[in-house]
Amino acid sequence: MAGEAGMYNGLDDKMHEECGVFGIYDPEGKKDLVRLTYYALYALQHRGQESAGIAVSDGEKINVHKGMGLVPEVFSKEVLDSLKGKIAVGHVRYSTTGSTNIVNAMPLVVRYRKGSMALCHNGNLVNAFELRKEMEQQGTVFQTTIDSEVIANLIARGSNGIEEAVTQAMYRLKGSYALIIMTDDKLIGLRDPKGIRPLSLGKLDGAYVLASESCAFDTIGADFIRDVEPGEMIVIDENKIESKKVFNDVEKALCIFEFVYFARPDSIIDGSSVHMARLEAGRILAREHPADADLVIGVPDSGTVAAMGFAEESGIPFGIGLIKNRYIGRTFIQPSQVIRQLGVKLKLNALKSAVKGKRLVMVDDSIVRGTTSGQIVQMLKDAGAAEVHVRVSSPPITHSCYFGIDTSTRKELIGAQYSVEEICKHIKADSLGYLSLEGLIKSTGLPRETFCAGCFCGKYCIEVPGEGDKYLFEKC
Amino acid sequence: MAGEAGMYNGLDDKMHEECGVFGIYDPEGKKDLVRLTYYALYALQHRGQESAGIAVSDGEKINVHKGMGLVPEVFSKEVLDSLKGKIAVGHVRYSTTGSTNIVNAMPLVVRYRKGSMALCHNGNLVNAFELRKEMEQQGTVFQTTIDSEVIANLIARGSNGIEEAVTQAMYRLKGSYALIIMTDDKLIGLRDPKGIRPLSLGKLDGAYVLASESCAFDTIGADFIRDVEPGEMIVIDENKIESKKVFNDVEKALCIFEFVYFARPDSIIDGSSVHMARLEAGRILAREHPADADLVIGVPDSGTVAAMGFAEESGIPFGIGLIKNRYIGRTFIQPSQVIRQLGVKLKLNALKSAVKGKRLVMVDDSIVRGTTSGQIVQMLKDAGAAEVHVRVSSPPITHSCYFGIDTSTRKELIGAQYSVEEICKHIKADSLGYLSLEGLIKSTGLPRETFCAGCFCGKYCIEVPGEGDKYLFEKC
Amino acid sequence: MAGEAGMYNGLDDKMHEECGVFGIYDPEGKKDLVRLTYYALYALQHRGQESAGIAVSDGEKINVHKGMGLVPEVFSKEVLDSLKGKIAVGHVRYSTTGSTNIVNAMPLVVRYRKGSMALCHNGNLVNAFELRKEMEQQGTVFQTTIDSEVIANLIARGSNGIEEAVTQAMYRLKGSYALIIMTDDKLIGLRDPKGIRPLSLGKLDGAYVLASESCAFDTIGADFIRDVEPGEMIVIDENKIESKKVFNDVEKALCIFEFVYFARPDSIIDGSSVHMARLEAGRILAREHPADADLVIGVPDSGTVAAMGFAEESGIPFGIGLIKNRYIGRTFIQPSQVIRQLGVKLKLNALKSAVKGKRLVMVDDSIVRGTTSGQIVQMLKDAGAAEVHVRVSSPPITHSCYFGIDTSTRKELIGAQYSVEEICKHIKADSLGYLSLEGLIKSTGLPRETFCAGCFCGKYCIEVPGEGDKYLFEKC
Amino acid sequence: MAGEAGMYNGLDDKMHEECGVFGIYDPEGKKDLVRLTYYALYALQHRGQESAGIAVSDGEKINVHKGMGLVPEVFSKEVLDSLKGKIAVGHVRYSTTGSTNIVNAMPLVVRYRKGSMALCHNGNLVNAFELRKEMEQQGTVFQTTIDSEVIANLIARGSNGIEEAVTQAMYRLKGSYALIIMTDDKLIGLRDPKGIRPLSLGKLDGAYVLASESCAFDTIGADFIRDVEPGEMIVIDENKIESKKVFNDVEKALCIFEFVYFARPDSIIDGSSVHMARLEAGRILAREHPADADLVIGVPDSGTVAAMGFAEESGIPFGIGLIKNRYIGRTFIQPSQVIRQLGVKLKLNALKSAVKGKRLVMVDDSIVRGTTSGQIVQMLKDAGAAEVHVRVSSPPITHSCYFGIDTSTRKELIGAQYSVEEICKHIKADSLGYLSLEGLIKSTGLPRETFCAGCFCGKYCIEVPGEGDKYLFEKC
Repeated sequence: MAGEAGMYNGLDDKMHEECGVFGIYDPEGKKDLVRLTYYALYALQHRGQESAGIAVSDGEKINVHKGMGLVPEVFSKEVLDSLKGKIAVGHVRYSTTGSTNIVNAMPLVVRYRKGSMALCHNGNLVNAFELRKEMEQQGTVFQTTIDSEVIANLIARGSNGIEEAVTQAMYRLKGSYALIIMTDDKLIGLRDPKGIRPLSLGKLDGAYVLASESCAFDTIGADFIRDVEPGEMIVIDENKIESKKVFNDVEKALCIFEFVYFARPDSIIDGSSVHMARLEAGRILAREHPADADLVIGVPDSGTVAAMGFAEESGIPFGIGLIKNRYIGRTFIQPSQVIRQLGVKLKLNALKSAVKGKRLVMVDDSIVRGTTSGQIVQMLKDAGAAEVHVRVSSPPITHSCYFGIDTSTRKELIGAQYSVEEICKHIKADSLGYLSLEGLIKSTGLPRETFCAGCFCGKYCIEVPGEGDKYLFEKC
Repeated sequence: MAGEAGMYNGLDDKMHEECGVFGIYDPEGKKDLVRLTYYALYALQHRGQESAGIAVSDGEKINVHKGMGLVPEVFSKEVLDSLKGKIAVGHVRYSTTGSTNIVNAMPLVVRYRKGSMALCHNGNLVNAFELRKEMEQQGTVFQTTIDSEVIANLIARGSNGIEEAVTQAMYRLKGSYALIIMTDDKLIGLRDPKGIRPLSLGKLDGAYVLASESCAFDTIGADFIRDVEPGEMIVIDENKIESKKVFNDVEKALCIFEFVYFARPDSIIDGSSVHMARLEAGRILAREHPADADLVIGVPDSGTVAAMGFAEESGIPFGIGLIKNRYIGRTFIQPSQVIRQLGVKLKLNALKSAVKGKRLVMVDDSIVRGTTSGQIVQMLKDAGAAEVHVRVSSPPITHSCYFGIDTSTRKELIGAQYSVEEICKHIKADSLGYLSLEGLIKSTGLPRETFCAGCFCGKYCIEVPGEGDKYLFEKC
Repeated sequence: MAGEAGMYNGLDDKMHEECGVFGIYDPEGKKDLVRLTYYALYALQHRGQESAGIAVSDGEKINVHKGMGLVPEVFSKEVLDSLKGKIAVGHVRYSTTGSTNIVNAMPLVVRYRKGSMALCHNGNLVNAFELRKEMEQQGTVFQTTIDSEVIANLIARGSNGIEEAVTQAMYRLKGSYALIIMTDDKLIGLRDPKGIRPLSLGKLDGAYVLASESCAFDTIGADFIRDVEPGEMIVIDENKIESKKVFNDVEKALCIFEFVYFARPDSIIDGSSVHMARLEAGRILAREHPADADLVIGVPDSGTVAAMGFAEESGIPFGIGLIKNRYIGRTFIQPSQVIRQLGVKLKLNALKSAVKGKRLVMVDDSIVRGTTSGQIVQMLKDAGAAEVHVRVSSPPITHSCYFGIDTSTRKELIGAQYSVEEICKHIKADSLGYLSLEGLIKSTGLPRETFCAGCFCGKYCIEVPGEGDKYLFEKC
Repeated sequence: MAGEAGMYNGLDDKMHEECGVFGIYDPEGKKDLVRLTYYALYALQHRGQESAGIAVSDGEKINVHKGMGLVPEVFSKEVLDSLKGKIAVGHVRYSTTGSTNIVNAMPLVVRYRKGSMALCHNGNLVNAFELRKEMEQQGTVFQTTIDSEVIANLIARGSNGIEEAVTQAMYRLKGSYALIIMTDDKLIGLRDPKGIRPLSLGKLDGAYVLASESCAFDTIGADFIRDVEPGEMIVIDENKIESKKVFNDVEKALCIFEFVYFARPDSIIDGSSVHMARLEAGRILAREHPADADLVIGVPDSGTVAAMGFAEESGIPFGIGLIKNRYIGRTFIQPSQVIRQLGVKLKLNALKSAVKGKRLVMVDDSIVRGTTSGQIVQMLKDAGAAEVHVRVSSPPITHSCYFGIDTSTRKELIGAQYSVEEICKHIKADSLGYLSLEGLIKSTGLPRETFCAGCFCGKYCIEVPGEGDKYLFEKC
């Protein structure tokens, strides 16, 4: 998917709605919690570049700072110094919905009858609209368009303590949520009953930490304990850490795209190394779609590891054929009409000396619209490549996803409209091969029933309101 | 009150929690609504310098832009150009509560079951806490600390159309509110049943406008129609403008501080010219507290007009004795410890050539803490003034106010703790005279029963929860 | 001149190229020099709002910080804290030349064979172009368009010590200059042989200070010692303060516009109080051009004092008829085409209650183009004024000035093209009267030979290259 | 050198003073020159992240915009749109000298007797101090600390046309310079007689382009023509392009660090592919210092390619063992004292699943201080690596460089103080091997006499003033 979308929008070219969440509870209050949260969010920056925020509870009240942009852009030394407390939560957000509005930044901090709470959510509720309408009928107002506000309202309606209230809310929520909630004196982590989005638990000396990905633990020197389980609620307070299985009979449905693209390679998700899975995907891809070629190259950065796996398995040498400019940023200015044709050149450059006269295997992690893939194939041929055999380390994306990938309409998905043969023609590749879904699942080393792969097979793990029986409650 | 407080905080040195509101409905949609709102807010800037915001409805959805700072700081040309619609509302806010947080900026835009609405509020609810608690008990969450959020939640609970919902809400609200509400297709203005805060109605060609003060109409070339009446609701839609008296048996209680300090002199409030009232206050002050002096000077800017009235009535020449630096801004840096003694000199300078050897009458509009007044007296004496007779064009502030003036604790109010004689000694004036409340009321030309003067007499127009019978429901 | 120009450009509406300079030498090094300079520049802000800068010498090297904008915008607490030393100089600059470029901001800091120096210049060299060409012929390069760079190059060419080098430079410079130079260990102030621009010397405990106007001394608590004399060089070092008369046979030619408009009223220039001069100008104006009227009002802020003088002398009451919005700033956005007609209303508002039915005398300090004056007259009539008699407290500006007033072309000067009668018609006043040059000079209490009044009479104090004998070396 | 320095300062961790230069002349004036320059600078961003600037000549005058930060931070759409012309030059600058001052940003634009010129310099003059002193003696002032100002002054002194003046200047300059000069109507490129810094010539339709590296041509779609030769001056004007060999008897001395680290891998320098050279360096390194290991990993990004070469040659598999965070930026906040130990973890993370139990070869491009290398070795061992054999694809840096590498003092250079054995112990590697200088030179495929390798051998290509005969005028 590298280079497929958002060419001039960001440091990265993701095309999805993803977030990173983090929380820490330090009962002794001796750590520089806010800086640790800052560094953890920085480690999760790949999950969201649109906005960032940190909320801190000092036991009595919650203070929050959030803003548009990357973590280092949002937080100044002065701001970090001004936030003090024993519990902290943080959030990075990416959104392609166009609602690049500060009002939608997280953590969302609300006051309700039991005190205050801050919410950090990664995921997508499929019944957010329904719940919102239902609560609006009861006279509730909404100030944002984010699911967290719906969740906060549900929790606030709950009876008894926060844990019960959260439990009751979880019974109403449908969709994906890796959620971290901070109250005045508790840190709560929960994962939806399918475990669609990842959430990990770790420890840093006497403090407990929660994070979307384990790479955040490595960055701040914390030890990984385990993944939060689907349907599980973790409650950390001054004296203890407790686990509650809110849903016992869970049927796991981890989003397989975490392995394809979302997660950082140095993270371990539900026991499987993302890097190792991508490497293995490349190996399997080589077996499924061998190619007669001189050099295997990856489309940086996301295709590189699978390319290495492909090379290893095929025996064709691995090499670098494309150089990516590391400095593209949010404010990068688009080419004017006069120089529009520059396109992907502003971001990638073919390494002529490496590809000239070579028959190439070019590996990418996915193809969304196909436009950029075609431009890269052309660039490689212009640089003298004799042949370009495109290999993709995931299956064609044939269906829109409701739980995170922002491939909003089917029309944009080249995999939904055209056959592999047609796509090959379209991008002018000499051959094109996609990894099978079976191969992709196998690459993770996890059982088939672990995953939701709806974007590849159309069978989603959760019934989507308004989509009738199109999205069956079954695995493909 | 000039120079009394906030010396280094702002372009102005007000010590109150005040706001300015504005709304315009242009059924033909031909006007540059957003720029008109921008200029109107700029005309109301004296009512709030902390944050500014504009919301626009294009008939289907409401877009909003708000930020911390002065109107020209918050809005760029790009932002103004990006907001389009047929209805617009705007808000400027001042707050000394320390919650200088963007989340509290207005307009507050919410979605509820009937659509969207934007609220702009000037005033202070005395039962906001109660209402908030009550709604929290029903499971409502609050994201801000502003009264508008309470009001929005009340309205959202209402049955039937927006007008009924607003009416029902008004029955629940206690306190001061000059409120402008924009829905997708209506512009609504309302004023609390006491009319504590001002609100005016005007017309600009085919468009209707609402504003805190009539000076906003002058700035954008609109014609003043009339004040919105206490307890009245004005509803403007595409076809008509309607008035509804929500409360019929109203007992007016306009905040008299609008005449003392809040309002711009070129505004007409409830039929009385603010400038003329201040001039007359000076004249009456001269009669109540004559002085044997050579020159009458005002403390700029707020004491100038009353000084002119004092001079006229007393026959003592009016002159300028203090020069105010016009450039102090939000970011002005406070003196370090080493040069702390500079104090008021950074803002005001005595005009030696004018005051040397003179017996002065120095007129100010009010005294809050007394610190600055003392410094100014000293400055004038250092500049060679033979005598400084301080005259204040309002009575001693003896009571905290719940409806706008942020004299949060009695302890800070020098008028609440000391006698006039003691204050005179404290500020080292040669004599000190305050205008009587009777005189102040007389200066406005309005009947005594028009006003709430609780800060001067301790008898507030509304029962304040938690203050027992201290704040009687009567006029002083 | 208030409102005449730059309506939407600045906090002020000056139409000239003026600057403010300041310097301080604290041999003991115990003062917070940089903050004192910051406050002094803030007191001189009226002389320049485009850019600001402070340079500090710690005895070994010079550090500088400068930027575009007002003093509080350019300097953060962090920056102030980072600058340390025993000598400091500061500058505020205003420019209408369009070269709003940071490269032209002062102080200009250069390294030359004897060390470093920082220059702060207020004035205008008439032979800058010549000197520049001459030095360019010798291979000199120029990086800015400011006169200071020419001066720095001249000084750097000088032989022997800095004092001799400066002296030699002064012999070459033609035009106006109030100049403050800081070397690694000296603070030097000089004023051109005509004394066209003001420069004052003061003392703050053991430290000596130099400033464009004495109001800067009042602000920082320094005592005024005396004006630097025309052609004088003041040299302050660790041990002593020395005066050197570089030109003995000087013929003074202080720019009379300092009294009309440039200087702050609380400054004393060459022994005369600016405020008192403006008041007296109003009195003389009343005698020269009496009017049969009910009320005298000033155009704020610059016409107010003269209006008071006019009222006093004429016996007609003084009042406020126009309210000025205090909040206009650099970033204020101009009206779009649709609402262009708002014009002066965005800045000034007529006080209907005060002017209705009245025959007014409206006093302003000067008229440049006449456009705004016409708008104000109209605004007053729209507000119900029966008659508007315009009185101007200076003569018609008939000639462009080469030493500070940026009335770049004659074409813009209404006073250069039309008779008083025609101007009266153009601005639709009921009558129009300008103060005579004689009256203006008299108002200052200084002898006629003190001033250059070239803009009023066309006879400049210095021969202007390329203007032939049009600008005679004589007084009018 | 990755991770060695500037850990929290920049997007990159270079430790040198390097720049990127670019120029374009479009005689037809139909191209969007400024955007092309913007994209070219963006392609050269790796050569300098401190400041960026673009100057444009419209034939009559030169306009310039420069600022601190990355290219997209310095230029807004508005600024790009405001710059128009037929010739443009651009510059990106990196500096560790601490003089992060806007006054030192390039292009430097000066006016001199023949008109205007803009200079963009990459390199380091060794006689800048001498030349500066000499010119200061003649009365010249300097406003910056950059060599360009010295060069501009030299050129301005030159007689006859610009070409002669530049030629004369080149005879005086000692040191490295890849220089692009724009006058009102000419674009001139020159390279010092040793060719220490690279400079390439290209063509884009009818327009000629000059750039530090050929990757800039690829980005804007221009064709590479050839390298500018040592001692060559290229003059492009409206009608022609001319080459002049200012020095005929040149002895080439290209900085070998361009191949080790500075240049982007997709650039071709003096005929040799940077990427291919690095790959080959890895291969030779494997032969010179083989290791008995399971996996070869590179320190990202700079060690990756050599690691691939090492793997290929040794037959040991290549893999990824370290993940680099892509989002570190200029404003990244350093860890507080409490969490200082995080160190390199904030930027790099070991891939446990890949390195656990493995005997690793860890390849980096260079070692400067050794601190970070030690931290990375430790991180890999903490992640479970059985052994870590460090291989460096360049020789130990034993000498400070005067022409670009900012290894200001010998003390910091671990290679200058310790033996390889001692360094190995210091960084706690299981073995350590550096590529020989011979091997490094061989990797480039260019003859030995092509290079200056003074930092590795102490024999610099140019006599350095004040260093006596220590820096001989010979090749090692």
